[in-house]
Formats: sequence, structure tokens, C-alpha cells
Amino acid sequence: MKKSLIVQKFGGTSMGSIENIHIVAEHIIRAKNDGNRVVVVVSAMSGETNRLMGLAQQVDCVPNARELDVLLSAGEQVSMALLAMTLSKLGHSARSLTGGQANIITDGQHNDATIKHIDTSKIEQLLDDEQIIIVAGFQGINENGDITTLGRGGSDTSAVALAGALKADECQIFTDVDGVYSCDPRVVKSAQRLDVVDFPSMEEMARKGAKVLHLPSVQTAWQKQVPLRVLSTFNVNQGSLIKGEECQQAVCGVAIQRGLTLVSVIPESVEAIRKHCMMLGVSVWDVVNESSLLLKEDCLAKLQQVCEDKLLGYQCVSLLTVVGTAAEQLAEHTSQLLAPQDIDVVHVSMAKQSMSLVMLPDCIDKAANILHDAYITTAEAMDFHPKKAFLG
Amino acid sequence: MKKSLIVQKFGGTSMGSIENIHIVAEHIIRAKNDGNRVVVVVSAMSGETNRLMGLAQQVDCVPNARELDVLLSAGEQVSMALLAMTLSKLGHSARSLTGGQANIITDGQHNDATIKHIDTSKIEQLLDDEQIIIVAGFQGINENGDITTLGRGGSDTSAVALAGALKADECQIFTDVDGVYSCDPRVVKSAQRLDVVDFPSMEEMARKGAKVLHLPSVQTAWQKQVPLRVLSTFNVNQGSLIKGEECQQAVCGVAIQRGLTLVSVIPESVEAIRKHCMMLGVSVWDVVNESSLLLKEDCLAKLQQVCEDKLLGYQCVSLLTVVGTAAEQLAEHTSQLLAPQDIDVVHVSMAKQSMSLVMLPDCIDKAANILHDAYITTAEAMDFHPKKAFLG
Repeated sequence: MKKSLIVQKFGGTSMGSIENIHIVAEHIIRAKNDGNRVVVVVSAMSGETNRLMGLAQQVDCVPNARELDVLLSAGEQVSMALLAMTLSKLGHSARSLTGGQANIITDGQHNDATIKHIDTSKIEQLLDDEQIIIVAGFQGINENGDITTLGRGGSDTSAVALAGALKADECQIFTDVDGVYSCDPRVVKSAQRLDVVDFPSMEEMARKGAKVLHLPSVQTAWQKQVPLRVLSTFNVNQGSLIKGEECQQAVCGVAIQRGLTLVSVIPESVEAIRKHCMMLGVSVWDVVNESSLLLKEDCLAKLQQVCEDKLLGYQCVSLLTVVGTAAEQLAEHTSQLLAPQDIDVVHVSMAKQSMSLVMLPDCIDKAANILHDAYITTAEAMDFHPKKAFLG
Repeated sequence: MKKSLIVQKFGGTSMGSIENIHIVAEHIIRAKNDGNRVVVVVSAMSGETNRLMGLAQQVDCVPNARELDVLLSAGEQVSMALLAMTLSKLGHSARSLTGGQANIITDGQHNDATIKHIDTSKIEQLLDDEQIIIVAGFQGINENGDITTLGRGGSDTSAVALAGALKADECQIFTDVDGVYSCDPRVVKSAQRLDVVDFPSMEEMARKGAKVLHLPSVQTAWQKQVPLRVLSTFNVNQGSLIKGEECQQAVCGVAIQRGLTLVSVIPESVEAIRKHCMMLGVSVWDVVNESSLLLKEDCLAKLQQVCEDKLLGYQCVSLLTVVGTAAEQLAEHTSQLLAPQDIDVVHVSMAKQSMSLVMLPDCIDKAANILHDAYITTAEAMDFHPKKAFLG
């Protein structure tokens, strides 16, 4: 029987010190001793990317893009070497590979490259030699052999892309939380870790502000049919497994996105502004209606420079999104829950299996607790079925 | 007319801060503006290699050799990127290349690799595109594509090897002293900077303790017929040019080597001990006679472990070497100069165009001043010819 192949990804906090790297090595050795072939993707040690970026910005506030990639990619080179050394010290054969050595080929978009292709033959050969493979996350090379980086958070993308290319049995994202929660546990104390989440729900939660996984990683894993598992480096449990095509639960989670701006514009200029945004590389979060749209707060300044004349006003807002098969039918009931608590919903928008509420930032924690209690905590206790309970 | 090609090498101190890197960039731009094609080789920022080595040794006191190379080579990757960014910020097109990207192919001896071959086609193509090329010193790749390092001081080796492969018109080693001196100026205040030094004299001075250039760099430059120039990054002058096949001066320099041990051994065991040393990778500095040999102080412990039974005693000593065409004829006169000053010479040995004196460490500064005064400072003032003055 062919051994299972597992890709494990460890982020900056997991790789943040020699002690932590030792803990990482123990996770890897456990997977190897369980009879798996193991490929590991690592981020730079926490703080290192910022340190390097700080050096670059002492040189130039907008550093040369090609050279910034050369600079930043050194961060993962350090952490992967330290991990391979640690495994070696513990008696296991390990081999580190840069993005280039792992044949991760990207387009030429420095600082924000996209993986085009991974030639896995070298990795597979090393796996056949019983090696543990450590690959630098966040980096690749373009067709000229120049170093490229995938942008921040790119190590998850590297891991998922490698898992897809290697047809891995599971891609494990180790992080500092121990799974996917029904809401941010710092906001909602009763938030629960989800044992299993289906891909469409996870995608919608990631899109609407859940920070545990980057949206493109979820999308790639879904597309490549690689089961994703989110686990904690520092807390041994099964984490959350993301798999499956169909949205499974009436309400599985409540996502929070802060730091948005609701921009009011001259009526009928929305389309023109949307085009400006595309040219500026500013992503429009949502078009609310013909005279207002939702942007990330930090994109506003850019937009103001270009089309101040079309902007009438702006307001800081946050977005609360309820995800699940029942979400689209909860608008009225939600409004009944929030209105008596003096929570004004500025705008409601529906997507497939989700409902998003735009509100003032200082209401969002309270609103998240009210909706999470009603649709998840209480509902579970009551064997909740929203249609029956609230709509029927 | 084809433009001159200059290879410039900047060490760790030169690359030690963003401010210093700016000074380095100005040297490069000056060479470029003078109409040269410029290839630059850089070391890691000062302190960085030690920082990385410290991390490795927290993992393992003898870290995995392959992974140590991966780790340490990240140091030059950082400095080369910062330099290329600085040049770019100053309006010059520059491109950084790792050892692998520059096609510097070495043998597989991790941590102490030897350059086998450099395929310069990529560098030449970039030079034709008017780029300034920044190459990471101290590193290459072996035939498997694994990163290798050349050992400490290897950036000089990289620069000279690149200059040879590119048939450069000059290889400029920028450092924190402004040239080759007739003796260490910290010891002999009247030591003079030498405008020109021939290769055989420079080789002998480097072999016998002059620190300004590494011996293998001098040998490679001589063999490849690349003129070497030693200059200061922080002090603009012409430095010292090393070129020419023939030893030119009666006495051109006095070299000092500290930290040696004179080991007395059981008579006729010298050859056996020499073989032990080879097996241990301990280099024997000199065989003094059939019952004593000269070692670097820090090699003694290794030797003691293996053949304690053959060792009779040891003594810390230093070595003073007079280099020049007349050196071989100065033994008697030297003894006349040193004896009245209570300087005991334990042993005298002759090589082609040099005379080396073994003495106690606390005599060496005084002896260096006496011989430098007699054979260089005074001699120059008197239009010195040693045969005439002392021997004839």
C-alpha cells in the first residue's frame, strides 16, 4: 500500500524561535512515524519579514520590486534551514528547498506573484529516498529564474498548491489557533471549534472576514480537492477539517470584517468609480447600491486622489456575515433581534448561503454575540432548524 | 573600443549598514560613470553571519553541513538585494544574483567548497544590457543544485574567480584598510602603503600572516593574471595594485603571524604526526626540524587527542617574515640586529625570497619595528641595497 502523503504548513509564530522550531519538528516526526510521507512548508520566523521590510524601506519607500523579493525570500531560507537542521539533529533525514529548488514556477508579478506550475519530480524523488522535505513558503521563481514572492500570507498558498500538485491526502495548516471557530472567540466567548466545515461555507467565511485561512488557499484546495486541516502548533487536537462540496449546516458560522468604509458617491457614478478602482488595484468590497459602495478603509486615500469630485461622503463601518443554508432566510428575524438592542443595520446584502449586515463598528461585537447565541449556541441546544423555529 | 570590465568586492563592514551600503553604491556608480562595465561581489552585512551561526548552534553544536550552507547563504542574499535597491533608487539599473543564479558551480564540500567552474553567459548578457551585476559572495551551488559555501573569507575568492572567468581588467577588493602595507601599521607606525606589489611578494606575505588578502585569492588572481587592487571603502585613494610576475624589491614587507605553537615531538615521529594532521584536517604550518613542528595554536588540542604519546612539549610562538629579493641573505645581519636587544630567535627558516624567524610572542612587535626600520624605512632613505649595505 502506498503511504499517505501529507503537506504540513507552519507559520511565522510556529517558526518564531529555536524552541518553537523544536515543537514543529516533533509534529513532523509524529506524522512521519505514523507512516506518512511528509512535505513541510514554512514561513519566515515571526518578525523577520518585518525586519527585512524595515531595512528595505530605509533604502527606498517603494523598493525595487524584483530586489524586494530577493530580500524577503531570505527569511524563509533561514527558517527552513533551521528546521531541517533540527530534524537532522533529532535523527531524521530532511532536505530544505527554496521555492526555486522546489520548482515552484510563478508569473513575473514581483511581490504578488501567482503560481503557474509546480514540477514535483525532484520532491517526489526525495520522498522516495525517505527524506522529509522542507519547502520555503511564499516564494517561487519566474521563467527567467528570478525570485518572486506571493505576497503576504503566501505560505498557505504555497502549501495548498504543493498539496494539489503532489495529490496529497491532506494539507495541514498549523497556526496559533486550534481550528476554525463558529465566530472569532475573542469576540464571542461561546464560539465553538468546528470539527468539519464544508468548502462552500469555509470559502464564504474567509471571504467575509474570518482570518484563520486566506481566501485563495481555500479556493485552491477546493478546486484541487485537497482536504485542508487547521490545527494549532501548540495544542494537540484534531483541529478542523475542511472538505466536502455541499453547504451542510443551517448556520455554521458568523464572520466579522472590520475596517471598512461605506462611500457615498454621486448617483450613477458607481460604475465609473469601480473602473477607477480596478485601475488603481483597489478592490471594491461590495457595491451596496447605485450611490454607495464598500471599500477597505486603507484604500480610501488612493481613491480620493483620483476621483474626489465624485465622492459625497464616507463612514467607517463593519460587516457581519451569517453563513449557512438558512442564512438567506434570516433577514427579517435578524432585524427583530437587533432593533430592540439599538443596533442599526445600514445595509443588508444576500449571497448564496450567506447574509451580510453593514453596521457601525461599535455595534459589531454586540451584534455578533446576539446572532451567534440565537443561531448557533441556543439553536444547537434546541436541535435548531431555522425554518421551523423562526420562519415556519 | 570595448569597455573595461571591473569586478569590485565589498566586505561585511562595507555592507554593514544602510548608510555604508550607500557609500558602496557611490563607488560602484563612479566606476560605471567612468565608462566601465561593473560586476560587484558582496559579503553579508557585518555581524549577520555570526548571528545566523549563533541560531544554528542553538540547534546543534555541529549543525548539518548542507543546511548550514542554506542558512548562511541567506546573509549575502540580504546584502545584495539592499545594494541593488540602493543603486535602483539612485537611478541605476542593477540586478542581484545568488551564487546559483550566477552559475558559480562548486564541488560538493559543504561549508568549505571549491569553485569548479563559472558559466558567465548570464552575467555577460546582463552586462550587455547595461546592468550593474551584484553577485552574492561566499556561495555557489553544486551539481545537484544544492547551495554550498566557500568557507569564511570566501567572498574574496568569489570575486577573484569571477574576475578570472570574465577576464576582467581589474579586481578591486574594497576593505577597511586602504591598501597593502609594508607591515601591520598597528604594530609598526612607520609602515608604508605600497602602491604596487608583485604577485610573488604578495603571495609570500599572505602566506606568512599578512591579513589584508586571503592566500587563495592572491594565488587565483596570479594564476588567472587578474590585477588585484586593495582599496578602502571609506577613504578614497588609489590603494595598492598587485600585479607582475617577478619579485621586485630587495625588501618589500615584514609579515607577522601570531598564535602559533612550536611542538616538540619524539625524534623521527615528525612524519607520522604530519600524516595524523592531514587526516584530522589540521594544517602543519612548518616542519622546523626532525623533532619539532609549527602548528596554529587552535589545532593543538585536536592533535593532542590523537597522538599525545608522541608529543614532548609545546611553546607559544610568533613568526616574523621578511619578504623580498634580498631576504634570503639577511640571516646573519638580522641576528646582529636582534641579539643586542635580547630578542631570541628560536628558529630561522628560508624560503624563496623570504626569511622567517620563530620567536616568543612578546618579542615580535619590537622585532618587527627593528627589522622594518633597518630594511625598509632607513633603507629607502639611503637608497638601500642590502648586498652593498650589509653583506658586501
